[in-house]
Amino acid sequence: MIQYYHHTEPFALELGGVIEHLTIAYHTYGELNAARDNAVWVCHALTANSDVADWWPHTVESGCFLDPSRNFVICANILGSHYGTTGPLTPVSPGGEPLYGDFPKLTIGDMARAHSLLANALGINKIHTLVGSSVGGFQALEWAAQEPERFGRMILIATDAKASPWTIAIDETQRMAIKADATYGERRADAAQAGLAAARAIGMLTYRGPEGYNRTQQDPDGQDITTPHRACTYQTHQGDKLCRRYNAYSYVTILDAFDTHDIGRGRGGVETVLKSLKMPAIVIGISTDIIFTPPEMRRLASMLGNAQYMEIDSEMGHDGFLVEHGKLNAILNKFCNTKS
Amino acid sequence: MIQYYHHTEPFALELGGVIEHLTIAYHTYGELNAARDNAVWVCHALTANSDVADWWPHTVESGCFLDPSRNFVICANILGSHYGTTGPLTPVSPGGEPLYGDFPKLTIGDMARAHSLLANALGINKIHTLVGSSVGGFQALEWAAQEPERFGRMILIATDAKASPWTIAIDETQRMAIKADATYGERRADAAQAGLAAARAIGMLTYRGPEGYNRTQQDPDGQDITTPHRACTYQTHQGDKLCRRYNAYSYVTILDAFDTHDIGRGRGGVETVLKSLKMPAIVIGISTDIIFTPPEMRRLASMLGNAQYMEIDSEMGHDGFLVEHGKLNAILNKFCNTKS
Repeated sequence: MIQYYHHTEPFALELGGVIEHLTIAYHTYGELNAARDNAVWVCHALTANSDVADWWPHTVESGCFLDPSRNFVICANILGSHYGTTGPLTPVSPGGEPLYGDFPKLTIGDMARAHSLLANALGINKIHTLVGSSVGGFQALEWAAQEPERFGRMILIATDAKASPWTIAIDETQRMAIKADATYGERRADAAQAGLAAARAIGMLTYRGPEGYNRTQQDPDGQDITTPHRACTYQTHQGDKLCRRYNAYSYVTILDAFDTHDIGRGRGGVETVLKSLKMPAIVIGISTDIIFTPPEMRRLASMLGNAQYMEIDSEMGHDGFLVEHGKLNAILNKFCNTKS
Repeated sequence: MIQYYHHTEPFALELGGVIEHLTIAYHTYGELNAARDNAVWVCHALTANSDVADWWPHTVESGCFLDPSRNFVICANILGSHYGTTGPLTPVSPGGEPLYGDFPKLTIGDMARAHSLLANALGINKIHTLVGSSVGGFQALEWAAQEPERFGRMILIATDAKASPWTIAIDETQRMAIKADATYGERRADAAQAGLAAARAIGMLTYRGPEGYNRTQQDPDGQDITTPHRACTYQTHQGDKLCRRYNAYSYVTILDAFDTHDIGRGRGGVETVLKSLKMPAIVIGISTDIIFTPPEMRRLASMLGNAQYMEIDSEMGHDGFLVEHGKLNAILNKFCNTKS
């Protein structure tokens, strides 16, 4: 069940803005034990929400790595998002107007500090395991850099310590598609739907990659030349689907934040920070991921103070992190469910 | 120097349309010899033109694989394009209006038949070597399937015998970006510029891939968080650059044609056709190409009747075919410049 934390102080943002009335939406699964040492915190990716059990099937179950019968699993909706935490569609004050495209610029640092506020409010000082997949891993690494003593263990799946030129180029291209829709900027929740659909389609290309599409979107043999290709209807369907559940202003706000990601900024560089993180960590790459490629994931693991690298063999590209729950559970079950 | 062939008959299109007044723009380099057996025909990719020496540096030079001192090199601008051959911006009759978005649908088969018309008009029955890179290879393979006896040799670089779900998804995503710009459909040459820029940026992602961007678009160390990322300015710059030299209607027309590519259609399937093509062929893959991946290129070579596979090691992704001229010349010089 979704829950809300209402912060009573103004929340100052790294790039100069302020959120006067910060609300953080979150889900929890299982119970915090008496020793308060069984919290497992999951950081979610771009358009997901705090309901991990919904977007990450077969991970939040008894016998899975996020085991609510043993752990107290928490996920907070990220700043700027569409799912309950303060974002571009949130009225600035009760009864007021949302900020839409005027919502202040965020950083990954802001997102991590919001997670920290919630953890404090829940009375969880020490977190058994911090989990981040994809850009959830951006938040996890940033939060670990902010408060390294807070975390007993860390799981990083298909992610990076700093936004690469490649991921930034992907984000910029999605922004270009959204802003090619001239309704972007209009003060309404459904502005720039066609642009958002195109941006999502770009995202899908990078999530699935060549192997993912060629495996799942083949046309039937002998299809007539005038019949729409399955790959085309898939792209438009995915775009439309996102438009029904998300908004262009949150999307751009969060893409912008992703591009600021650099755990080394102001801390002596990525290598220095990664080396200083001594908690046991597992870094997982996906064999066909074209966003966070296996060589990059291997490098991330090698730079961390105490990490092992594991690779999941999958044809599903970056989306492998969402669908290969069997392989993830096999690698992570013991790691998350051991007394630290 | 650009030259034009004006076809005097209506040109019927595979999908039912007709081009009443077909013009084909082309370039030639070198001289056709007395035996008329030294023609090397190059098929160009998406937004290129007939001036191979311009878009493929250091290939059309003495001592390079397209050697004008020995070969008669020809390249025709493809149907629907922006560079002289009949397309969406061409007036339907002298002094008339262009068709813009009402330009008829094309296929790769139509493009190949237009090449064939030009070859006939130039009196070239036998072509020493047919060259196609990227979607130029779509035309080359289709033309070879239409007239297998016409070609002595074939060079296929980073291409395929049939549009894959992955390449179709990339094309559809670009169309979505163009059509997110509501000016698409307006009867003017510069309609949907913002959409076209976004489409080009999507294309660039696929041309360069992770290695290409991470190698060439790194920000300087210690860059301020408020300074635009180099990867962002690169994407917008590439989008703007294309808008200055191309139009959205040609772009969509040609993407649509690409998606029809299937040399096996009506000919008993891809495998049957490839096996039947017995001319000596070289198939070249690029190690970091995420559009036409090395495993796919290897498969293409293995299915052809008489081909060898060569791989170019490059960090430039699909764009490797444009920039790795040294490696291409090393592989292809002898092949193109041998008496067949």
